Amino acid sequence: MFSYTLEATEGSARAGTLSTPHGDVPTPAFMPVGTQGTVKTLVPEEVEALGARMVLANTYHLYLRPGEGVVRELGGLHDFMRWRGPILTDSGGFQVFSLAAIRRIHEDGVDFQSHIDGSKHTFTPESVMEVQRALGADVIMAFDECPPGGCDRRTAEAACDRTLSWLARCKTRFEALEQEADGLHQALFPVLQGNVYDDLRRSHAERTMALGRWKGYGIGGLSVGEAKEDMWRTLELLDGVLPPDRPRYLMGVGYPDDLLEAVARGCDMFDCVAPTRNARHGTAWTSAEGQVNLKAARFKRDTAALDATCDCYTCSRYDRAYLRHLVVASEWLAMRLLSIHNLRFLVRLGEEARERIGQGTFERWRVEWLERFRNERSSQ
Amino acid sequence: MFSYTLEATEGSARAGTLSTPHGDVPTPAFMPVGTQGTVKTLVPEEVEALGARMVLANTYHLYLRPGEGVVRELGGLHDFMRWRGPILTDSGGFQVFSLAAIRRIHEDGVDFQSHIDGSKHTFTPESVMEVQRALGADVIMAFDECPPGGCDRRTAEAACDRTLSWLARCKTRFEALEQEADGLHQALFPVLQGNVYDDLRRSHAERTMALGRWKGYGIGGLSVGEAKEDMWRTLELLDGVLPPDRPRYLMGVGYPDDLLEAVARGCDMFDCVAPTRNARHGTAWTSAEGQVNLKAARFKRDTAALDATCDCYTCSRYDRAYLRHLVVASEWLAMRLLSIHNLRFLVRLGEEARERIGQGTFERWRVEWLERFRNERSSQ
Repeated sequence: MFSYTLEATEGSARAGTLSTPHGDVPTPAFMPVGTQGTVKTLVPEEVEALGARMVLANTYHLYLRPGEGVVRELGGLHDFMRWRGPILTDSGGFQVFSLAAIRRIHEDGVDFQSHIDGSKHTFTPESVMEVQRALGADVIMAFDECPPGGCDRRTAEAACDRTLSWLARCKTRFEALEQEADGLHQALFPVLQGNVYDDLRRSHAERTMALGRWKGYGIGGLSVGEAKEDMWRTLELLDGVLPPDRPRYLMGVGYPDDLLEAVARGCDMFDCVAPTRNARHGTAWTSAEGQVNLKAARFKRDTAALDATCDCYTCSRYDRAYLRHLVVASEWLAMRLLSIHNLRFLVRLGEEARERIGQGTFERWRVEWLERFRNERSSQ
Repeated sequence: MFSYTLEATEGSARAGTLSTPHGDVPTPAFMPVGTQGTVKTLVPEEVEALGARMVLANTYHLYLRPGEGVVRELGGLHDFMRWRGPILTDSGGFQVFSLAAIRRIHEDGVDFQSHIDGSKHTFTPESVMEVQRALGADVIMAFDECPPGGCDRRTAEAACDRTLSWLARCKTRFEALEQEADGLHQALFPVLQGNVYDDLRRSHAERTMALGRWKGYGIGGLSVGEAKEDMWRTLELLDGVLPPDRPRYLMGVGYPDDLLEAVARGCDMFDCVAPTRNARHGTAWTSAEGQVNLKAARFKRDTAALDATCDCYTCSRYDRAYLRHLVVASEWLAMRLLSIHNLRFLVRLGEEARERIGQGTFERWRVEWLERFRNERSSQ
């Protein structure tokens, strides 16, 4: 039901295809985030039309609202949110650490209070497997401990050990659940931790690999505040350790430039809330001018498309003057139209990277692309 | 360029077609409100798909942001908001009275402060014609004084006199502007005032009719807090006074039941922010259960369509359980999906009324429909 085929490489960059029960995902692939079972402001037809093949949903949010039991009763997440393609759910761990009001980590799991109503809950490796099974995503993530960026070595090491012990428990529960003859087939990805400590990163990856023949790997604990060089060095290290025939999902990344840097270092799957969050703030990525904020007065009478090279609905249909008006007037349609564009921008970046890797022209293109994008951004 | 053809009547109810430079509008017709040049959260394709033929935009808002000069430079409101069909703009008067922070009415016009930034502005009958010409809608409204509901007779009478004197000035400026060979053809509708005072209503309508051969009439000063019986009596009175071969636009109405009552009393065109405003609050109209609030716990696992008889995108694609989840989770997609449904509900009501009037079965259907809708609503 699950496979990953590596189709081309250029240096460490990889083009492949992840096959799931709900369809194939050509990689590198950016996955739009549908936190609460909806990619904010968009309908599934739009997400599909902008080229996304796989979306992400958040276990923490759906567990709290409407509850995984309700989602299961309603046919699982695919039926619930009307998304026919592959879905990945995270473990909820990251949200517990970043959103929940109060939490206490102990060996058995994490106690926390809902950020919505203060009610008390506990996530354990086992319960997180059960919740993700009820939700019914194609790819589910192991419950991990992600310490804050900039944590000391001792904290990072303890988090690695705990993540590993929780992974073994996730695996046991996951395998038991997979025995249920309910027609649902999921792939469990472990999450690699170790912060920016090379030896921890290496040993945690190796110990994780020794624990099972995983269908893919989540790379966690990055893009949490560390220096960019630390992220790139960690990805290069992992590229030398992880099996080439498994997809690598760099969790929570990223911005267009980070995505390309990570592709160059062997990563295949990405997710980030930046496209929709930036849209809410009136910010968009463009090929010719880098990152722009539509509020700028210079767009007031600008009849050009937001991004002349973009094939998204927003760019084919509206001009910057109208988009600026919507942003300035706080019209919700602004977020919708900019979300479509920003998501398409990242999805298209994955598509183009894939094409370039196949042609062996990725590295040259990447360097030029990054230089242009960063220069433009800094000149705004 | 403008004509109104009366095609069928049943009692006072009328079915007709308003022809404009941007297409025909079969009446009775509900016009979605696109206050700031966008029907909130929706794109023009969606507004068209839900059957709306004409939309409304607000002069006050567009004058302040982005400014009518910008809209004109960008090709006028049709190009600006990508709406190919007919557009009606109001005069801005009602918004000045209801939104602007401070205003002072004098014989020449109204001084007011922007609700956005407190800047000072003046609307006069002449300037309002100029602003609406720059916006370029098909039907534009005369600048009127709409006193608050429940005002005394003296206030209502003074407002009638002022509205009439302003109408004469609107007409003069409008006719001068129409001489400009810029290819733009607009129809100017006067606004009838008189509050709930029958003799004022009658005399104001007659004096207005004496002032020109208008292409249609706006009925103002209703749905501003008066008793429903006062509104119905006023409409019945006007039905006996207004020429049958001109469309009557009942401004700011309304809810489904009010719309049907007004159709029965000879009104042809309607607008109201209730469909989108209710959507923002999670409220929807349904044929089988009247008005419902999706927050209700009973919808948590309800896999039925919002309205089984509705043909809108929302009802054909989603169930109540998912819509409730979106509302409860404060997802913006909720407003979008409920707006589509609520707008379709009113547009369809106009379509069905039109069909029934053609068949001579309107009155029986209306009575049954209203009884069912109101009983359901009160039983919630």
